[in-house]
Amino acid sequence: MGHKSMDDCGIDAIRAILASKPRPEGWAARRMRLDEVGSIWPVAGDIKLEPAALGGVPCEWSLAPGSEPARVLIFFHGGGYCSGSILSHRRMATEAGRAGAMRVLAAGYRLAPEHPYPAAIEDALSVWNGLRSQGIAAKRIAVGGDSAGGGLTLALIQRLRDAAEELPACAWLVSPWTDLTMSGETIATKEAADPLIHKAYLAELAEAYVPSRIDRRDPQISPLFADLSRFPPMLIQIGSAETLLSDSSRLAAAAGAANVPVTLEIWPDMIHAWPLWNGRLEAGRRALASAGSFVRQKFAE
Amino acid sequence: MGHKSMDDCGIDAIRAILASKPRPEGWAARRMRLDEVGSIWPVAGDIKLEPAALGGVPCEWSLAPGSEPARVLIFFHGGGYCSGSILSHRRMATEAGRAGAMRVLAAGYRLAPEHPYPAAIEDALSVWNGLRSQGIAAKRIAVGGDSAGGGLTLALIQRLRDAAEELPACAWLVSPWTDLTMSGETIATKEAADPLIHKAYLAELAEAYVPSRIDRRDPQISPLFADLSRFPPMLIQIGSAETLLSDSSRLAAAAGAANVPVTLEIWPDMIHAWPLWNGRLEAGRRALASAGSFVRQKFAE
Repeated sequence: MGHKSMDDCGIDAIRAILASKPRPEGWAARRMRLDEVGSIWPVAGDIKLEPAALGGVPCEWSLAPGSEPARVLIFFHGGGYCSGSILSHRRMATEAGRAGAMRVLAAGYRLAPEHPYPAAIEDALSVWNGLRSQGIAAKRIAVGGDSAGGGLTLALIQRLRDAAEELPACAWLVSPWTDLTMSGETIATKEAADPLIHKAYLAELAEAYVPSRIDRRDPQISPLFADLSRFPPMLIQIGSAETLLSDSSRLAAAAGAANVPVTLEIWPDMIHAWPLWNGRLEAGRRALASAGSFVRQKFAE
Repeated sequence: MGHKSMDDCGIDAIRAILASKPRPEGWAARRMRLDEVGSIWPVAGDIKLEPAALGGVPCEWSLAPGSEPARVLIFFHGGGYCSGSILSHRRMATEAGRAGAMRVLAAGYRLAPEHPYPAAIEDALSVWNGLRSQGIAAKRIAVGGDSAGGGLTLALIQRLRDAAEELPACAWLVSPWTDLTMSGETIATKEAADPLIHKAYLAELAEAYVPSRIDRRDPQISPLFADLSRFPPMLIQIGSAETLLSDSSRLAAAAGAANVPVTLEIWPDMIHAWPLWNGRLEAGRRALASAGSFVRQKFAE
């Protein structure tokens, strides 16, 4: 912590920005707020953006100079299945593409409470099928996302695996929300350290996303409890100052026990989904560089 | 599994070699056996070996062509604190040096039951101090080892941290034994999958290493229960077919929660301390390559 430069304001400055306004109330205000804080630093000028629709789902293509258009990351933004957008995560998704030298397809899946479970997963599957029908081989596709987008990634892979479909080359998960029962010990032990994600907020999100008749331990909803066998190689990145740390460490243990190649990175001092702020946060850029290196290696295998 | 070549016999062939002889009984037979299976494939012909003594502890220097002699990995072999030697782990230690472009100092610390706890830790500290007194800066030293050698690495770092000494650049742990109370769930769930490490054997080792008056939860003995704060960056590598998988996944979670930079790699199908067999096992060489890349990056920071 502490070292600062033009290109690195440090995580404490991000914390200060997040603390500078009262927490928003209500879905509309939360969505505006995430669009605002997620896009404080604009997309780099050399990124080519193009709107698209795949399987009826609004999406956005992005491409950095020198990237390989035939390799694609499908990116699912976070926001607890209730907020977040292509806009809020544009800087993160586009720079992930640069780091991985690949094209990015950011998915604007439907949100709760208007569209509860399983709408988001159905949209994720529609995007996957839409991309595959364009002739992109599964092994040239990586899937990933942050927070709820990480959970959505795992739900999509379950669906594909259970349908005996070809699987993506790898999965990239940043601060994934894997347990909607909130049974991880860091929900309590990191309560004071985490500026963003607290139990009451998670409970509200889970209530909005999951119809009350459905068990939150359902593996499509809480992929921590899923059968993870035959999943593709998985990179999990999580900050040490996160209530969701146990969601990542337990996922790594479960996936590894199921014979999945797993890399878990725990980043000191980092907060929920910190690569969002890569525009001024060096640790955000380094995390994306590590993810890019991971994805490039898996594409090459 | 399955794919084989001149340079990759596959993990099943290693399993077959291990199963080809009855498990040895008694310490002398176990020591001979580990020397035998650990050195099936000889040290590469281009490695320069040199015996040494640091702080009174017998050691061995090794250097691969092109490596940087001013950067040193202190390597602690595994063997449950009761067996293992410079010889048994020579191929693993020397190839780790090549992968990390560094010199390796393999430590021949004292073994139980002749020399129970804390003899091994005292020897580890003597080797550290001996190397430091040769003018090698702490930040140019990496420490690491497999199995009990991983536990010993963590015990050494605790001692240094508690004495407010400078710390090594990083720690590298392969299949570390971090919990001598055997409370990890994979001790049971991986019992059938693991060809080498079972609860009764671990109990015998712990009994030989730890004098009965001492609690096995002591953090010097079971570093999983230690305060890990201010530890240097840590790479943990573990196979999915190991009873000690939980020793690694819980260590990663604990170190990460203590704000330590952690990378945990879980390798499918791999068994206890598989980089030992890098001579014919491609996954062993890839694990060493990943460790080498990690160490080089930490030396450069």
